[in-house]
Formats: sequence, structure tokens, C-alpha cells
Amino acid sequence: MESRNIRLAVIPGDGIGAEVVAEGLKVLEAVGTKIEATHYDLGAARYHRTGETLPDAVLEELRGYDAILLGAVGDPSVPPGILERDLLLRLRFTFDHYVNLRPVKLFPGVETPLADTSAEDIDMIVVREGTEGLYAGTGGAMRRGTPHEIATQESLNTAYGVERVVRYAFEKARSRPRKKLTLVHKTNVLTFAGDLWQRTVNQVAEEFPEVATDYCHIDAASMYFVTQPERFDVVVTDNLFGDIITDLGAAIAGGIGLAASGNVNPDRTAPSMFEPVHGSAPDIAGQAKADPTATILSVAMLLDHLGLRAEAARVEQAVADDIVERPAGGVGRSTHEIGDDITARVSS
Amino acid sequence: MESRNIRLAVIPGDGIGAEVVAEGLKVLEAVGTKIEATHYDLGAARYHRTGETLPDAVLEELRGYDAILLGAVGDPSVPPGILERDLLLRLRFTFDHYVNLRPVKLFPGVETPLADTSAEDIDMIVVREGTEGLYAGTGGAMRRGTPHEIATQESLNTAYGVERVVRYAFEKARSRPRKKLTLVHKTNVLTFAGDLWQRTVNQVAEEFPEVATDYCHIDAASMYFVTQPERFDVVVTDNLFGDIITDLGAAIAGGIGLAASGNVNPDRTAPSMFEPVHGSAPDIAGQAKADPTATILSVAMLLDHLGLRAEAARVEQAVADDIVERPAGGVGRSTHEIGDDITARVSS
Ligand SMILES: CC(C)[C@H](C(=O)O)[C@@H](O)C(=O)O
Ligand SMILES: CC(C)[C@H](C(=O)O)[C@@H](O)C(=O)O
Repeated sequence: MESRNIRLAVIPGDGIGAEVVAEGLKVLEAVGTKIEATHYDLGAARYHRTGETLPDAVLEELRGYDAILLGAVGDPSVPPGILERDLLLRLRFTFDHYVNLRPVKLFPGVETPLADTSAEDIDMIVVREGTEGLYAGTGGAMRRGTPHEIATQESLNTAYGVERVVRYAFEKARSRPRKKLTLVHKTNVLTFAGDLWQRTVNQVAEEFPEVATDYCHIDAASMYFVTQPERFDVVVTDNLFGDIITDLGAAIAGGIGLAASGNVNPDRTAPSMFEPVHGSAPDIAGQAKADPTATILSVAMLLDHLGLRAEAARVEQAVADDIVERPAGGVGRSTHEIGDDITARVSS
Repeated sequence: MESRNIRLAVIPGDGIGAEVVAEGLKVLEAVGTKIEATHYDLGAARYHRTGETLPDAVLEELRGYDAILLGAVGDPSVPPGILERDLLLRLRFTFDHYVNLRPVKLFPGVETPLADTSAEDIDMIVVREGTEGLYAGTGGAMRRGTPHEIATQESLNTAYGVERVVRYAFEKARSRPRKKLTLVHKTNVLTFAGDLWQRTVNQVAEEFPEVATDYCHIDAASMYFVTQPERFDVVVTDNLFGDIITDLGAAIAGGIGLAASGNVNPDRTAPSMFEPVHGSAPDIAGQAKADPTATILSVAMLLDHLGLRAEAARVEQAVADDIVERPAGGVGRSTHEIGDDITARVSS
């Protein structure tokens, strides 16, 4: 793998996307991997200029890369849903990113908003389903704009889709010291989907006798993330619950500036895509205020996914070392400075 | 109102339900209201004995009361969803409890799991829609148990249902010092329902020029509950997002032992129902370990709803005074002792 170049598609996207992605690429180069990065200008600007979100030809071109690095997508100048659905979610769905992998890990030295909580207490991985559930986008509206309007959304869940992500989560759990898997759902209200998820977990569990399984309603889980985060090791959940709980996870693990994610296609039938959990943050765009750490940690996940384990570990270590020396309360460094500091550690 | 008896239906329900409800009733009597309380044995025990969850005749009888006090519903011996759907949600739906009112308020003296957060930072009311969304229960499963299974859930949202709860939330916001209303949804993914909610908020806002409105995605809101709870004054949201965010709210405001709720029918076409946010907690049932404070605060909401404002304030004050004297870390008192202590303060 080391001998040939990594072909990387880069989608900086909107807002702070370009700023954080630039730092991610800096680190990627410093780690000594040979990369051929090609930038794609997708996002709000292109949408306004041409009306395009993600042309079919571009989508097919992207399929040819080893991986995709994405900054952030979304802008207040575009109606809600257009860039999200037609660009970000279209990539996740088309490239079958059925595992949305989101570590929730408190690095030593990072301030958590939780009192009496230390790094050992927060170390989990959320395996969020990435291709179905309420994100399917089905539903509709009737008599729109009248007092008789009805608007629906549908959550679509298949045995095929649930089983593969549950199996992945069990494998993850087996590889970790605690070997614990918690299903998070709302089986007492979403009885049809909940029944499918719970039955699937029960079935797959038989193949993983060494993994302890647990169940938690999404409402209770949200509470436990704050009061007993040490309860969780690997969490498997659906697309929407995973969306919510990983932002909460980012909050307890020191903030959205540190939360990395991978949209993974474990079968490698298409490129996986790595992106910070945070959004485009238009309010601070162009001011060099964004923390690029989440993107740099996403780059580490990307390296790991491509089999470059040692390089991934080096990037993670560089981030951990950088974080330990951050002054409490943050402040100080610009986006570039943080990127430079981490790059220096990676190169040394 | 003071002259005639309050006719109260009491549904202790499952697990710790009976224990906490007993303390709630103790306080209700001590406050000097004349009550006629009738107990209904609904819940897991009755289900196992007779197969019944909520017979039609009982439902119609319940309709005749001034209010309902509910403990908790749900037991591991009953498949998920049966008691929840056929008892709890059936009551909420049949009696048109379209406002599920859930204060998230940090009482002075209560320990919050959030560092650097004090009572002024957490003082909001969540207005959760209570009769539609994903709680409609529509959906189904096909090819169940096969590799080709598909399970669906539908979120049903109507202009009628959204508008009335949004208007209620604006009225609430107008009555509070900060006069701020935040819609929490996921408009960028749930585009049909999100569009209806956002348009409705925009429209009703025109009638309330003194109220400032804001919007927050559910994922970001979950983060802000932990990092910037002071952002929120009144939150209006759908049934499922409200379920999640109010458990999170309970966590940040000192725990589920203190979180009260009202299932309110503002049009008073049927009795409203008051219940602690917590569940039946079968693991500690029968051990006098449950904190009855959430139920007692729900009783205060009940009194307020029935127009007994002074009585409601007395109960709230008694709870606040009791809480201030609780030793840090909790411990010590049994369910009855807490109930007795608060009762003594109400009577004095
Ligand atoms: C931008 C949005 C569509 C997206 C999601 O909901 O998945 C984001 O919140 C995320 O978590 O990656
Ligand atoms: C028991 C369950 C059906 C219920 C809900 O989801 O509404 C509970 O979690 C609540 O918040 O009152």
C-alpha cells in the first residue's frame, strides 16, 4: 500500500470546510504518505452559480478514488435539505456508507463539560447506521400551506441494512477490551423498527458469545451519556438516533472541535468518506477560528481505513500530544497554527 | 374552585409508580385541597391477570375526572410497546394531550452533572407535541423474520396538530421574562415535516412580535443542552425529539428524580394527566429507594392546571426548600421520608 499513491478526492464544501480541510491535508502530507489529492468544488457556491449540487458525472468520477475527505456541507443561503440531501446524503447512500463510525473519546487534558468525569469514563465508539431509517427521505406533504396540510416522513429499515451494521458493531466490540455492545433505539414506541433491530441484535449476538449486549432507549441513553458515560463501549443505533447521540457525544468529549467521523463502506465497493462531525459554521467562516482537530482526527481514521495503521497512530498521537498542552479554556491559536503545530509533531 | 372537591383518577402503574404516587397524594392532601381520589389498577399486573391494558369502559370513566395522576408504565415482563402504546399513549391520544409540558429547571442547591453551571443557566420549559409525529404508531413489517424483512415507521404531522402546540408555546414564551422560543427539529433531513414546523412557527410568530424566535437542529440542541443550556427559554418540538431532549434536560437539571411533566389538554375537552418523566424503574421497585420529588412536582403542575395557583406555588416552594437542604451526593432518605419531609413543609 505504501508504494503507490493514495488517490484522494477532497470536497472542502461550505463555510469553515475549506479551512479545516487545508489543515487535514497538511498533516496527511507530513505523515509521509504519497497522496494525489483532487479538489471538487461542491457546495453552496457551486449551487448558486450553476444550480448543481452533485452532477452524475462527478459522482461517478468520485467513485474511482481510494477515499474522500469532506469538510462540511450546508449554508443558510440554500433552503434546508438541498445540499444535505442532494450532496452529503447522496454520497453516503450511493457509496453505501452503511457504517457511520464516530468515536466518542475524551482525550487526557481535554476539558469536558461534565463534572467529576475523567478520560477513562468516556471512551466509546458509536456505530451509526448510515443508509436507511428516516434518512431515506421518503414521505411527502399534501394540501401544503393550508390548514389541512399533512406532512409525513418514513423510516425505512431492512433486515439486510440492519444486520450488516449490527454485525460490524459486534466485530468492533469484540476487538475492544471491554467487549460490550449497547443497542440504542426506542423499541417501546417504534415497535416495528425496534423489533427488527432488537431481533437482529439477539440473533447476531449468538455468533459473538464473548460480547456482552445491552439495550437502552434513546431517551435514557441521552441521559446516561451525561450521567454515566462509562456505561458505553460500542453503541449501535439507527441513522437519526446516531445523529443525535454523536453530537451529544461530541459535547461530553470536549466539543465538536474534536469529533471525527468516517462514513465507511466496509465491503470496499466504493470509496469511504471521512469528515468532522461539525457543520459548516457559517458564523465563523473565513476567520481562521475553526478548530481543525476534528478534521485531522478524521484523516487518521482515513489512514487507518486504508491500512496505514502506523501513520494513523502517529497522527492520533500528535493530536493527543497537542491537546495535552492546550491551555484550559482554549484560546489562542488560529486554524493554521493548530494545523502547523500538529503537523510539526507528525513530522518530528 | 376551592369549594368543590377535585375528582382525581390515580393510575399508579408499574414498578416504583405506586410508591411515588403515594407520596404525591400525601402532599396533595396536606395542601388543603379537597380531593376525591379513585385508584385504577392498570399496568403489567392487570395485563398478566386479564390480558387487558385499558378497557374501553375504563377509558370512558376516566374521561369524567378533573385530572389524572400517573406513576409510571412499563415492565420487562411485557413485550416492549404493549403497555406504552395501549395504555400510556392511548390516554395521551384519546384525551388529546397535545401539549406535553416539561420544565427543565435547576433548583438552587441541586447538583448538576455539568461543570461551571448554576441555577440561572438552566431554566427552560420544553413544550413537546404529544399526539402525533412518530408516536402515531403507523408503519408495519413485511417478510418479518426473513432476510428480506422491511420494517417502517411513519411520522404523521398535521397543520392542525402543529399549529395548536406552536401557538401554546408562543403564549408560554410571552408569559416569561426572556420571551424566547426555540424550535428544535431536523429540517435539513426531515424536509417535509420540518418545512411544516418551520413555516408554522414563522406564521404564528407574526401574532407574537414580542417573542424572539430561534431554530436549532435536534443534534445541535442536544449539544447545547450540555454546553450552553442558557441558550434556551421555551423550546417547542415534536413528540420524539421532545422525548429525547427532556430526558437530557432531566439529566442536566439534577436527574430524573426531579423531572415533572404534564400531559395537557389546553382546551379542557378531557382531563389532563400529570406524571413524573421517569419510568417504572423495575430494578429498584419495592425498595423505597425512588425519589418521589418528580411526582410531587407533577402534583404542583396539576394544581396549577386546575387553577389552584397558590397551592401549586406552596408545593413548589416546599420542594425547593427541601432540595436546598439535601446533602451533596444525595443519600439517606427513603421514598416515604422525602414525601413526609415535603408534606411537613407544605402543612406548616
Ligand atoms: C448535515 C446533516 C445532514 C448531517 C446528518 O444529519 O447526518 C450531520 O448532522 C451529521 O451528523 O453528519
Ligand atoms: C414510556 C414512553 C412511551 C414515554 C414516551 O416515549 O413518551 C416516556 O419515555 C416519556 O417520555 O413519557
